[in-house]
Amino acid sequence: MTSAAADLAAVADVGLLDPAWAGSRAEAATADRTFLGHLLDVEAAWVRVLARHGLATEAEAAAAAAAGDPDAYDLAALARAAQGGGTPLIPALKALRAQLPAGSRAVHLGATSQDVVDSALMVMVGRVGAILAEDLAAAQDALAELARAHRSTPMVARSLAQHSLPSTFGLRAANWLDGLGQAADRLAAAVADLPVQWGGAAGTLASLSGHVDRAHRAGTLGPEVTAFTLVEDLAAELGLAAPAGPWDTNHMAVTGVAAALADVVAACGKIANDVLTSARIENGELGEPLAAGRGGSSPMPHKQNPVLSVLIRSAALSAPGLAARVYTAAGAADDERPDGAWHAEWPALRRLLRVAGGTAALTRELVSGLRVHEDRMRRNLELTGPLLVSERIMAELAPELDEASGEPGSGKRLIQDVVDRSLACEGNFRALLRAAVPESVPDARLDDLLDPAAYTGEAEALVDRLLAARRGTTTPPRT
Amino acid sequence: MTSAAADLAAVADVGLLDPAWAGSRAEAATADRTFLGHLLDVEAAWVRVLARHGLATEAEAAAAAAAGDPDAYDLAALARAAQGGGTPLIPALKALRAQLPAGSRAVHLGATSQDVVDSALMVMVGRVGAILAEDLAAAQDALAELARAHRSTPMVARSLAQHSLPSTFGLRAANWLDGLGQAADRLAAAVADLPVQWGGAAGTLASLSGHVDRAHRAGTLGPEVTAFTLVEDLAAELGLAAPAGPWDTNHMAVTGVAAALADVVAACGKIANDVLTSARIENGELGEPLAAGRGGSSPMPHKQNPVLSVLIRSAALSAPGLAARVYTAAGAADDERPDGAWHAEWPALRRLLRVAGGTAALTRELVSGLRVHEDRMRRNLELTGPLLVSERIMAELAPELDEASGEPGSGKRLIQDVVDRSLACEGNFRALLRAAVPESVPDARLDDLLDPAAYTGEAEALVDRLLAARRGTTTPPRT
Amino acid sequence: MTSAAADLAAVADVGLLDPAWAGSRAEAATADRTFLGHLLDVEAAWVRVLARHGLATEAEAAAAAAAGDPDAYDLAALARAAQGGGTPLIPALKALRAQLPAGSRAVHLGATSQDVVDSALMVMVGRVGAILAEDLAAAQDALAELARAHRSTPMVARSLAQHSLPSTFGLRAANWLDGLGQAADRLAAAVADLPVQWGGAAGTLASLSGHVDRAHRAGTLGPEVTAFTLVEDLAAELGLAAPAGPWDTNHMAVTGVAAALADVVAACGKIANDVLTSARIENGELGEPLAAGRGGSSPMPHKQNPVLSVLIRSAALSAPGLAARVYTAAGAADDERPDGAWHAEWPALRRLLRVAGGTAALTRELVSGLRVHEDRMRRNLELTGPLLVSERIMAELAPELDEASGEPGSGKRLIQDVVDRSLACEGNFRALLRAAVPESVPDARLDDLLDPAAYTGEAEALVDRLLAARRGTTTPPRT
Amino acid sequence: MTSAAADLAAVADVGLLDPAWAGSRAEAATADRTFLGHLLDVEAAWVRVLARHGLATEAEAAAAAAAGDPDAYDLAALARAAQGGGTPLIPALKALRAQLPAGSRAVHLGATSQDVVDSALMVMVGRVGAILAEDLAAAQDALAELARAHRSTPMVARSLAQHSLPSTFGLRAANWLDGLGQAADRLAAAVADLPVQWGGAAGTLASLSGHVDRAHRAGTLGPEVTAFTLVEDLAAELGLAAPAGPWDTNHMAVTGVAAALADVVAACGKIANDVLTSARIENGELGEPLAAGRGGSSPMPHKQNPVLSVLIRSAALSAPGLAARVYTAAGAADDERPDGAWHAEWPALRRLLRVAGGTAALTRELVSGLRVHEDRMRRNLELTGPLLVSERIMAELAPELDEASGEPGSGKRLIQDVVDRSLACEGNFRALLRAAVPESVPDARLDDLLDPAAYTGEAEALVDRLLAARRGTTTPPRT
Repeated sequence: MTSAAADLAAVADVGLLDPAWAGSRAEAATADRTFLGHLLDVEAAWVRVLARHGLATEAEAAAAAAAGDPDAYDLAALARAAQGGGTPLIPALKALRAQLPAGSRAVHLGATSQDVVDSALMVMVGRVGAILAEDLAAAQDALAELARAHRSTPMVARSLAQHSLPSTFGLRAANWLDGLGQAADRLAAAVADLPVQWGGAAGTLASLSGHVDRAHRAGTLGPEVTAFTLVEDLAAELGLAAPAGPWDTNHMAVTGVAAALADVVAACGKIANDVLTSARIENGELGEPLAAGRGGSSPMPHKQNPVLSVLIRSAALSAPGLAARVYTAAGAADDERPDGAWHAEWPALRRLLRVAGGTAALTRELVSGLRVHEDRMRRNLELTGPLLVSERIMAELAPELDEASGEPGSGKRLIQDVVDRSLACEGNFRALLRAAVPESVPDARLDDLLDPAAYTGEAEALVDRLLAARRGTTTPPRT
Repeated sequence: MTSAAADLAAVADVGLLDPAWAGSRAEAATADRTFLGHLLDVEAAWVRVLARHGLATEAEAAAAAAAGDPDAYDLAALARAAQGGGTPLIPALKALRAQLPAGSRAVHLGATSQDVVDSALMVMVGRVGAILAEDLAAAQDALAELARAHRSTPMVARSLAQHSLPSTFGLRAANWLDGLGQAADRLAAAVADLPVQWGGAAGTLASLSGHVDRAHRAGTLGPEVTAFTLVEDLAAELGLAAPAGPWDTNHMAVTGVAAALADVVAACGKIANDVLTSARIENGELGEPLAAGRGGSSPMPHKQNPVLSVLIRSAALSAPGLAARVYTAAGAADDERPDGAWHAEWPALRRLLRVAGGTAALTRELVSGLRVHEDRMRRNLELTGPLLVSERIMAELAPELDEASGEPGSGKRLIQDVVDRSLACEGNFRALLRAAVPESVPDARLDDLLDPAAYTGEAEALVDRLLAARRGTTTPPRT
Repeated sequence: MTSAAADLAAVADVGLLDPAWAGSRAEAATADRTFLGHLLDVEAAWVRVLARHGLATEAEAAAAAAAGDPDAYDLAALARAAQGGGTPLIPALKALRAQLPAGSRAVHLGATSQDVVDSALMVMVGRVGAILAEDLAAAQDALAELARAHRSTPMVARSLAQHSLPSTFGLRAANWLDGLGQAADRLAAAVADLPVQWGGAAGTLASLSGHVDRAHRAGTLGPEVTAFTLVEDLAAELGLAAPAGPWDTNHMAVTGVAAALADVVAACGKIANDVLTSARIENGELGEPLAAGRGGSSPMPHKQNPVLSVLIRSAALSAPGLAARVYTAAGAADDERPDGAWHAEWPALRRLLRVAGGTAALTRELVSGLRVHEDRMRRNLELTGPLLVSERIMAELAPELDEASGEPGSGKRLIQDVVDRSLACEGNFRALLRAAVPESVPDARLDDLLDPAAYTGEAEALVDRLLAARRGTTTPPRT
Repeated sequence: MTSAAADLAAVADVGLLDPAWAGSRAEAATADRTFLGHLLDVEAAWVRVLARHGLATEAEAAAAAAAGDPDAYDLAALARAAQGGGTPLIPALKALRAQLPAGSRAVHLGATSQDVVDSALMVMVGRVGAILAEDLAAAQDALAELARAHRSTPMVARSLAQHSLPSTFGLRAANWLDGLGQAADRLAAAVADLPVQWGGAAGTLASLSGHVDRAHRAGTLGPEVTAFTLVEDLAAELGLAAPAGPWDTNHMAVTGVAAALADVVAACGKIANDVLTSARIENGELGEPLAAGRGGSSPMPHKQNPVLSVLIRSAALSAPGLAARVYTAAGAADDERPDGAWHAEWPALRRLLRVAGGTAALTRELVSGLRVHEDRMRRNLELTGPLLVSERIMAELAPELDEASGEPGSGKRLIQDVVDRSLACEGNFRALLRAAVPESVPDARLDDLLDPAAYTGEAEALVDRLLAARRGTTTPPRT
């Protein structure tokens, strides 16, 4: 191990305590080395833009590009040195300049450290956003498939941890899809027009504007090219949008991303919570996909831990606080560059990208191979027995009984009595009901009214509606 | 005081510890009485819809409407009784039914408590959203006016609490506007299509669907009217949107509102932080609007407390945690009605509405009467003196000095030497510079280069661009 | 309703959206009226102290005491007026003075609004702390009883939502007790020495000190009485401690209380989470206490909602964010009285007192009447069957089999093979094991080894140890 | 770079976005490699304990110790593999066993992954706690020295960002000390008895207990040695305490640490906020210590950024949310090992250790070299002029004037009139006062009454009291 590598290993966080995202694509896309690469890319792109307009030489642009390999830098040393100025760009820029020919002035011309850090963060957000979009699209496809396949699979719905009424598993899956789809749409919107940040030391573009003015005066730059033109070109180089002005202290773009990432994690969390309940041996309705090396426990051979859901649930407990930190930072901003609020934002945003990225990947895997145990759904549905449909019995039969007896209200009293006696274990509900209801109500009608699977209301129609509402939004994007 | 009023007074929170929103329109719009009113309204609207389709009588609709006055209920008793079922709707419905003629069945027909609570919350969000929109539009108008009026008012920009470079106060105001405008747009989007919640006990519309079926079979309802038609009618009655399906456990609509409210508070917080710094006697650049009874201190007659900003800042420290609780609740949801996560959402959302509502009103007042002290801006700008423009001097003169001396790099060294000696207090910067620079650079040029107000870069253009970007979005909505 | 009462009703929060604490003793103890009472009490106590030392007249003390009835004030009007100065004390003091004879100067002599507000908050914390201590002591007694009664009741332990190994319900209850007991101890420590705040406008006691000096000079006050003596007397009057100095901006006393309250809610949350899982019909091991009007659902007669646990769980999702706001405020403090951070603390602390107070009361009720279904515990324990004790079989039999065969490792292989075949459903575990193991291992030994209830390790000893560790700390305090 | 090192570099977080702690001792003490080392140490210590009692061989103990070098492991690969079982211990144990002679059974005997992870976390907390204690003790010493040195240095106190009354800088420093000292005491208490976790798969010590029983039966272990004896020995080996029982799901020990860490950061944040305000050029009362490479800005030579305070402030905005996550996890715990809540705790706790560790080190540096500008304190004090002492003038002179005129209340009116005219800029306060007050009040008395530095009340006595209160608690601990 080289000395720099040893230094790095001595302090690194590589996810040993974060199995929710260790090994994920989002982790690599947000690693310090990756972020350093983005910092160097932003600097190089800027020289490229300057060179295009004659404000730098092609040699300078080539030199900046050549210095863009993050592996050529001592990452841990840069991180330590960042404390001196409160930002990693200062030591990174110094190290970058050390790689350039002496006298080169084009790098960072007219820029300030915040321009490069914030723009690099936006590039990083964009990359993670694309990864997330892919995983979320695949997860939505899998959920849509589950909803279609189990459109009519009877399952009890639960409210406050108790059985409420019959439903179908397809409807639960469609509801998962609805939540995840909305979250994915929000994320797509939040990362659609990530803005480049470029304003110079005071957000006035003063230094850059001076350079442009001198070039105009010297006749080396056409009058149609302004400081704003250059910023627009930089945005295009980086795949970002060019906003009306710098956003040094208006971090709405960042809070928007944070909120959408938290939405994604919350939507995934809902799914995981349901799987965790359903994967309990006493419930048994769902099982996580089986995979080699996952979830087994050597001392307890009977255990198949629902590890994907466990990790997603841990993420759902973590993400809201990370998003809140981004908002706290935005609300604590002051002046033209905040004295701490800006710095509080970076690590929270980066962790949130990792948590959301890991969660989306885990959720994609979870829902793509979810094992559905229809038999257990049916068995659990029958646990509460015909009481589950007593609401229906009441609604259907009470008026008929009233009419038969000519005594309004008598039907309701009669059925309530059957329910009460059944709850008091005085007998089987069907038998009690049969005895109480006149022969004019045939056995077959009673059986149908008592079948929970026949009392799922609009569950199937809702599956169709929810699928239709999502249609067209689940095509996986290119990354 | 009646006994109920005494009960209420004994437990009430009326904002004594929350001056950030006590007395605001948002407070009244989110009071428990108001919310009870929304619960009763939702129930009455539903009977109206049923009556329209012959599923209830007009008398039933009239009776439900007549029972809709929240003052007819014992609010504190209802709150206490809510513990029994975990929701305020259960005792409220019981009390509502007690006001109706015996035998009336139409109220709450086919509904579940979550339907009414969530729909009433959406109605409440919509009302507060309209109030907020009005205050935010007025605040934006005032900010736009400040930006225009002070487009060219010189002011030093600050970074990490230190002077960075000259700018204008108009640019700061335009940046405030940009942030607040984006937040207002997000809130408008988040409250634009608030969904009605209507799904019955299991989110399957089973009971309602049964009623509809029976009416179809009885020929009392046309086949074109389905359970979904009725829900759409209810949405229209309540000014809400009808979604593809119930959203019992998919609270993306709520997290979206929470995030937008947090955005609003953060944008206001940025403004307040700046005013607090500027209103310090040592800085003196800004003053809060003077108002009778505000900010004075009798034992300290010299004190004029910037109370509006103080309260807005307190809100900016509070809102992110409230939003996080809404997200935590969304991510902890399970089953078809969550066993605690749902209940955790209500108070957090309500507090957030109050905090944001109070903050927007305070901010409107703050920016509408902000006192701008141009003289202090100018005096502070001069504190750092010509050093503030040393960047410009370097950029403008160094090449000329190089050329004059025929020695590349000599210009930069010469000016850096002047800067260093000035920092070491070896003399006045202008005098040192004059002595160091050849006569070919005339005095007038030096004076111009040394004028901080002449080095504001694109500040004025940025004001124009930011105003243009906001134009068309600041028309106050009707409430 | 009087006009003031109507005003109050129009804006009041009486807990309609907070069933977790509506109606609790903590709610009443933290109501705005109660807090106003504490503000008035602090002012009156101060005049009492002054009068004792001749710095005020007995008539002034009596007048201040007589003006201490909060019902004599217009609460909602005071809350609205608090916005003017950012604190409720300013209008409250004005209203108080309006009740006093003209010319009375003793009230608030030498004090500042923060002195009264912070001291009143400490009094309020102390009151709620006593209520909490009582409920927590009773809950601990009930838990200790559960632990003793079910010391040996077999129950499966669960890990990551799966069965792990046999345990006893008594051990689970003892662990609940251990957590709740530690939290209660922390809260007791945090409220043991709540400090009075008294420092005057700048925290220097300057005004008070001037009064004392003048009285010394005039000979009307003995030299042994200093400003600090007066503050100590005030502390004694209020049941608070007298710290070394004012703590205007050092809110460690408040963060300590917030953390302890969050500990209490977390410990309660753990219990509620377990009850919610156990009260599911598929699990059935525990049931909440039955109480009239609680948990029932008229349209779903089979439902008995575990409402206490639902509300406790909602509190556990809410409390951490409230505590974090108190910490955020403490860390954002500045100067000698913070410009917003102080104001952000009050509502968060008050809500946290309510949430914790409600939660402790609900938990006391929950654990005092918890229904324990030993039969379901036994039945669930058997779901995983003998596999649950395969670890034990391996440890006990493998060495004997090795010895019997003379082949090291063969025992482990043989038993693993039985486990694998059982998991693959090739037969009953006991039968497969019997067939695989030599006759030298008698049937009775196999049966004993296969009995999950016989493999609870040190569960019973742990119950004893945990009970012993808590002993002496559960005596209910007097309130 | 080796392949493992390259893998690690590709995903590592080494603090590039966390300058608040990059390079700190706390970072190294909480790095993944360090934590892996603790995991291996716990396993090795356990075999040592077993060997001491004849339950393992000395060779096994030596082998486990020899396998304890974390550099022998592929850290990034372990982190990735942790996802399989949801904990890093599972792959780490597998890799550890691969380093041991075949057939060795002693490692991890009777333990479960949570035992090792939680115990290793406690060891890590203890190490960071010792580092923090050292930095906090040094910071307290420096603050005490500042308080002593500036006991009488006049400085204006501020309230709601405005001047309130005169005070001394020594009192401010003493208040900083008071807050930091209390936080340090809490942290010391929280880390004083960190508990070992050892309970086996179900927290019943079943497997270990079985081993002990068999050894008892075989006569190879004396009856005085129980499973609890072994756990006590392990605790002693690791420098931890042995609690009454395992604490699998009762994480009060962890919440206690989190709260104390948040206290530390909040106390540091208060200091940093004050320095940031004071280091503004308009205020100028304080300056950060000058250090090579810190705070300078090459394009803006006049800038000396208060970087230490900026980073501490960023930490104060971040820590509360991290602590809240630890509490959220504790309150979401369920069963005997939580299905996600446990996993959510690790990264939050680790980040909090890093943030607090970095903050304490930065604060130590900040307060040890803080530059105090007494001249600016004096100048700022005079900005508000004599109005600052108008409270004193009123208290001292009004009664005398009343007496002189024989007209009660006239003195107050007269002085108020002077104040009002001064505020209305009708003249110099002293001149107006002199003209209004009878000659019987000599000039010297007026001058004394008008000297703000003479109206600091008990500021000096408070410095003494606060120093005395902290004495004896600031001796630096050994690490």
